[in-house]
Amino acid sequence: MEVIEALIQATAEDRVTTNETILAQHGKDEAYSEPRNPDVVVFPETSEEVSAIIKIANDFQFPVVPFGLGTSLEGHVIPYHGGISLDFSSMNQHIEVRPDDFLVTVDPGVTRSQLNKKLKPYGLFFSVDPGADATLGGMAATNASGTTAVKYGVMKDQVRSLEVVLPNGKIIQTGTHAAKSSSGYHLSSLFVGSEGTLGCITKLTLQVYGIPETIVAARVSFKDLDEAVEAVIQLLSAGIELARVELVDKASIKQVNESNDKNFKEAPTLFIEFHGNEASVQHDISFAEELLADAEGMDIEFEKDVKDRNELWEARHNLAYSFVHGHPGKKMMVTDVCLPISQLALGIQHAREQMDALSLDGALLGHVGDGNYHALLMIDPDNVEEKRKADLFNEAIVHHALQRGGTCTGEHGVGVGKIKYQQLEHGDALEVMQQIKMALDPNQIMNPGKIFDRV
Amino acid sequence: MEVIEALIQATAEDRVTTNETILAQHGKDEAYSEPRNPDVVVFPETSEEVSAIIKIANDFQFPVVPFGLGTSLEGHVIPYHGGISLDFSSMNQHIEVRPDDFLVTVDPGVTRSQLNKKLKPYGLFFSVDPGADATLGGMAATNASGTTAVKYGVMKDQVRSLEVVLPNGKIIQTGTHAAKSSSGYHLSSLFVGSEGTLGCITKLTLQVYGIPETIVAARVSFKDLDEAVEAVIQLLSAGIELARVELVDKASIKQVNESNDKNFKEAPTLFIEFHGNEASVQHDISFAEELLADAEGMDIEFEKDVKDRNELWEARHNLAYSFVHGHPGKKMMVTDVCLPISQLALGIQHAREQMDALSLDGALLGHVGDGNYHALLMIDPDNVEEKRKADLFNEAIVHHALQRGGTCTGEHGVGVGKIKYQQLEHGDALEVMQQIKMALDPNQIMNPGKIFDRV
Repeated sequence: MEVIEALIQATAEDRVTTNETILAQHGKDEAYSEPRNPDVVVFPETSEEVSAIIKIANDFQFPVVPFGLGTSLEGHVIPYHGGISLDFSSMNQHIEVRPDDFLVTVDPGVTRSQLNKKLKPYGLFFSVDPGADATLGGMAATNASGTTAVKYGVMKDQVRSLEVVLPNGKIIQTGTHAAKSSSGYHLSSLFVGSEGTLGCITKLTLQVYGIPETIVAARVSFKDLDEAVEAVIQLLSAGIELARVELVDKASIKQVNESNDKNFKEAPTLFIEFHGNEASVQHDISFAEELLADAEGMDIEFEKDVKDRNELWEARHNLAYSFVHGHPGKKMMVTDVCLPISQLALGIQHAREQMDALSLDGALLGHVGDGNYHALLMIDPDNVEEKRKADLFNEAIVHHALQRGGTCTGEHGVGVGKIKYQQLEHGDALEVMQQIKMALDPNQIMNPGKIFDRV
Repeated sequence: MEVIEALIQATAEDRVTTNETILAQHGKDEAYSEPRNPDVVVFPETSEEVSAIIKIANDFQFPVVPFGLGTSLEGHVIPYHGGISLDFSSMNQHIEVRPDDFLVTVDPGVTRSQLNKKLKPYGLFFSVDPGADATLGGMAATNASGTTAVKYGVMKDQVRSLEVVLPNGKIIQTGTHAAKSSSGYHLSSLFVGSEGTLGCITKLTLQVYGIPETIVAARVSFKDLDEAVEAVIQLLSAGIELARVELVDKASIKQVNESNDKNFKEAPTLFIEFHGNEASVQHDISFAEELLADAEGMDIEFEKDVKDRNELWEARHNLAYSFVHGHPGKKMMVTDVCLPISQLALGIQHAREQMDALSLDGALLGHVGDGNYHALLMIDPDNVEEKRKADLFNEAIVHHALQRGGTCTGEHGVGVGKIKYQQLEHGDALEVMQQIKMALDPNQIMNPGKIFDRV
């Protein structure tokens, strides 16, 4: 094939492959979307190679789908229109730390844990922590977040500057390394969350933070989910600065206990973390203890020990994987609505009711400080009825969220799974997004059929 | 004129004017740019009226320039291509507070102090505080910031959702009221800072904060500017959370003393503020005192009293106006570069040298925690040589900043004054901005000749 020949010319013979096994690895992600193989997988090593590949794709009007580690949850990396899967795993060597500026510049294939390992000797850390150890390029492409967004913000808030290869092959820089700017349109925030539909991120300059002087984690359980959510609103309204505040339901705690050999009380639970100086954290803890007791919180336990704290968060991070391992043969569907926090208790209650009404088995958990919660459903991919019920459930909670000022996806992105809600969520603003897409990618080669259907 | 007739039809006779005095009020801003009157000024009262006006403008291919209070500093509101000045001062009635969600929804003509007055009984405040008591619509349009960005971020970080009237007259909502979202392109951040070139902001939903339990301000002076900047880097690197950290030079302190009947020591000075709980602020103050003493800081004074503290910040906020009042007949030119903080001491030193070399008289001050500094020059508008020197100075410091990863404007925006630096700062990314502009505003009716020249 002519395209393949051109791709080899632009890179190297051993970095362009149509090997079936490798194609299949690039035809799926970590969730329930139907797989579909790319025609070819290419492993670029430099931004210039990415530019050359995209120019070829544009000339041949051949789709390009950027691929990090394939940990997306809405089919983002699945090449439904065929074409090239552009695998960034070989672009993961460079991490440049500038401690005085609290900045790092990284290759897009660097993962969050790889970055944090590099940062530790500087007393710095990178805050965004989705469940997966995803690549930073992929995390920017989906505007990922995780447990620390309540204090440090989401991926968009960390991106100071990007290098992007445009659909025409040009390489641009968005933003500068200054902490703020009012110079021109804020393109960094446009490319963050654009899911590879406007170009390929080939370098990122990200903000990092000093590791806090004091970190204390806490667990507190409640009689029901509503009480737990109300307690979080109390804490936030009182001005207590929470670095993390995760809600896990009874089913999740059960899974945590089983998979991690723990013995946590099987009840709706908040995992909380405080960051700050010693005096500040002590003050916040005392105040929080009072408020949590008032809010009917039970069995408050603090984990001041680093090892215990790390185990707690590891258990939380691995929860989705624990469910997958605990349900062999099933596929995971994770919902992802986010609501104004005043609406969250109602939202979670509604989700619980819908799950019961549809006799669906699943867990509820969430980044409650941001109003973001997930239902974790394990679906038998061959059971049409189960799949239909899960879809109904998802639809019900998305509509419920949109009617209350929320969004259909708090952190996972649109991919293919949430396309059907875009018109309802954005109204005529969706047209603006499509105009931008067509202005930058008139041939629709960049990840076609994601965020919106290919025209 | 046919356009005028249509505008009256869309609004009301007494809200469409060609009165020379009113035209002249809408033909200038607060800085040095040449004035130019609009052809007509219209005072809309609703989003629907704005939509109707913009449709008329689009039909007649007649420019529309949004106007808040005219406090811009780079000619943003000056209608160099004539047309309609769209004055939002009558759209300033609605302020809806949702304390549980830490959100407010406001009309675009509401000013920051008007909003803060409304928020106070709720124990809340809005953080962004440019020198002027600007409208929130205008502040969003230029991505304004001020003294608190180091802790709370800039305007972009506060905008949860916007209502925007597009150049085709359609009214859209950007974003939702959820604290985070990965749903589609982040249009809020595109319209924030777009300076009215992509549409008109007609409603804003903004994040607000709880008034901190404890606020303490401090003043500390230094032998020279470099030492002051180095001290700030020490404080930030030590993990001390500064809510404000303002550098004012000797000339600025002199002006503060004269205009405010103060007796501050006339030396380079940092104005600092700490926000937090009592314990945390005490801890940070003790630590900061040590570090500041090590950094050769002299005469550290704390202002724990609300009145003294307010006077301190009022004096700082009014500094630019104090200079203007102190120099009758002159016009102000304020430079606005922002650098990575590691480069800031060098940048300020270079600026001082350039000012001396050009025999320019002016003050240096800045939001040093963000790497943003201003030179405040009072220019005789009839003195060609003085104007030329000021331009040379501005050019020198912009180039110096751009070579070191900085931006030509940290918070004032591009307007007309910074157009000439856009290509150098953004390279091929500027083309992307222009493609977006042409996709959304093909007739170039929205604030033409701002950010980039009219094609």
